[in-house]
Amino acid sequence: MTKEEIRVITLSKLQLEEDSVILDVGAGTGSISIECALLARNGKVYAVEVVEEGVELLNKNMEKFQVTNILPIQGMAPEAFEGIDKVDRIIIGGSRGNIGEILQWADEHLNPKGIVVANFITIENLYTFLQALKEKDYEYECTQVTIAKSRIVKDITMMQGLNPVFVVNAWKAENFNKISSK
Amino acid sequence: MTKEEIRVITLSKLQLEEDSVILDVGAGTGSISIECALLARNGKVYAVEVVEEGVELLNKNMEKFQVTNILPIQGMAPEAFEGIDKVDRIIIGGSRGNIGEILQWADEHLNPKGIVVANFITIENLYTFLQALKEKDYEYECTQVTIAKSRIVKDITMMQGLNPVFVVNAWKAENFNKISSK
Amino acid sequence: MTKEEIRVITLSKLQLEEDSVILDVGAGTGSISIECALLARNGKVYAVEVVEEGVELLNKNMEKFQVTNILPIQGMAPEAFEGIDKVDRIIIGGSRGNIGEILQWADEHLNPKGIVVANFITIENLYTFLQALKEKDYEYECTQVTIAKSRIVKDITMMQGLNPVFVVNAWKAENFNKISSK
Amino acid sequence: MTKEEIRVITLSKLQLEEDSVILDVGAGTGSISIECALLARNGKVYAVEVVEEGVELLNKNMEKFQVTNILPIQGMAPEAFEGIDKVDRIIIGGSRGNIGEILQWADEHLNPKGIVVANFITIENLYTFLQALKEKDYEYECTQVTIAKSRIVKDITMMQGLNPVFVVNAWKAENFNKISSK
Repeated sequence: MTKEEIRVITLSKLQLEEDSVILDVGAGTGSISIECALLARNGKVYAVEVVEEGVELLNKNMEKFQVTNILPIQGMAPEAFEGIDKVDRIIIGGSRGNIGEILQWADEHLNPKGIVVANFITIENLYTFLQALKEKDYEYECTQVTIAKSRIVKDITMMQGLNPVFVVNAWKAENFNKISSK
Repeated sequence: MTKEEIRVITLSKLQLEEDSVILDVGAGTGSISIECALLARNGKVYAVEVVEEGVELLNKNMEKFQVTNILPIQGMAPEAFEGIDKVDRIIIGGSRGNIGEILQWADEHLNPKGIVVANFITIENLYTFLQALKEKDYEYECTQVTIAKSRIVKDITMMQGLNPVFVVNAWKAENFNKISSK
Repeated sequence: MTKEEIRVITLSKLQLEEDSVILDVGAGTGSISIECALLARNGKVYAVEVVEEGVELLNKNMEKFQVTNILPIQGMAPEAFEGIDKVDRIIIGGSRGNIGEILQWADEHLNPKGIVVANFITIENLYTFLQALKEKDYEYECTQVTIAKSRIVKDITMMQGLNPVFVVNAWKAENFNKISSK
Repeated sequence: MTKEEIRVITLSKLQLEEDSVILDVGAGTGSISIECALLARNGKVYAVEVVEEGVELLNKNMEKFQVTNILPIQGMAPEAFEGIDKVDRIIIGGSRGNIGEILQWADEHLNPKGIVVANFITIENLYTFLQALKEKDYEYECTQVTIAKSRIVKDITMMQGLNPVFVVNAWKAENFNKISSK
């Protein structure tokens, strides 16, 4: 499950609106999908996950958080996208190597002012995504997030390192005057 | 102004509810107060800031974002808190050395299930806060956030380091069964 | 055992000379003592360690690396320092709470152009050391080192975070014209 | 100039021996070449740098540190390597895009138990190097080093972030039984 800090930074980069239509690729157990659904309460989330247990947990989480605007889809990207028309946001959490195909699909299905946000823990997948963005004329910002958490033993605060994560947010430059990092 | 990533992590640690009453100490230009006010839309934000220009900018930002549930207070903590009764959340962004007095005030004014979240960039202020928390029987989690941001020059992605920030969230253990980091 | 990267940064901050006399407090199995002894080949290393097994391993490592200029001392700081006259460098790797006493001892036994280098993984011990340095008119530099290491699985490079370490190097300002970080 | 912490970690990964023959590509003003020359005192350093001012400063630094076992070469890799026979270590500090050609040259000129160490601040150059290593059957370790340094103002220790650097050390697996990270 995506760590709290990475999740909220990912959500912030998405710049969701109340009626955003969101595609969450590699949704896992839905920790990000649920928060998207709550924020885009008049919108919709397509949550694509290949692992069956993930989809089951997502269904349970939807009930638990009383969220109805998520459509879980079990399957692989991009085949699983069939039937999805237009989306405003794409989240890539676990692409398993078909990043290029996802961006290819985005060419026809991402709205002009749409935003793509992806998380990476490997250099190779990060690079592949950045190259695909450049080829398709996206602009992007890459944020590496390194978190250390306290472990408190007898009133002493030891800091423990977590694995760093790269968060990339991308947009079609031609469709924006200027997006500046806040 | 608080950087986007630190701001959203701070907000996440606050676990705001729709009707939360929030005290933002060292509110600056109100970047966190505004987001609190939007999330706690049936609640209220007391935004305390000692610098006059900060309070002026906060007033402008309230207009810009059409937020009405913020009460800006120009003054120093804890004198500026006079008249504030009970609060559910306290944010400490710039305490200027009177952290102990703020926690003293919290003893009488923070609701039992209240949460305090503070940001630090210096070792000494962080330590002083942790010690004050221990003396007053708070439990806490300390998260160090180190961000590197891309600077893209001719399609090459260079990573640039920002200053690390410590985010501490604290609560009275006796009033919770268990708060676990998500 | 101290991680390679922390060890070489600690050694660099020590600015050893060929004839330096070094006190290594909390020497552990001697990973830093050995490297000090090799660099200060006409000097001497007092390696103080409280745990018996540590001292035994240190003796074995001395044989393995054919190092003869280390004097292992089993005991607690500062009692274990008895009989040590003057030193040029002090390394604090594991002080177990008597940092103040170590610096007290340094007042009489550290040569004027001496350097103290200490490693910390907790906020409280770091702070206590910084305060003791200020009280005794040391100047210092604090370097936080955050390392992520690759784990390579099927040609994919995943980055894994290690625990951050604070390395503090300190000197008596009055005895130097200027020490600048290289 | 390479920062102290990165320099000593780079040197540590090189595992220099007294008689090592070293090629420093992108030597700059020679901060790493000088330290290599001091450590490999019966060895030799070829210091290749394209910028004339760099080579001039390197010559001055050689005099200053009384180092005679460096051969400065002004020119571009790999043309500048002409006349160099065999080397034991290669340092890549500033490759300007011809990483592949440098590794190609290494195929014929790096001794079987040789080690290559490279520093990167961009994702693209890091990736290109990792891919070239894989193609030529090198094994490697990648270490990301994130440093924060104190800025002390009125006895208060503020931590300031520096840019993260990737240090990659590589070797031909077939020629080693096992190299483990210490």
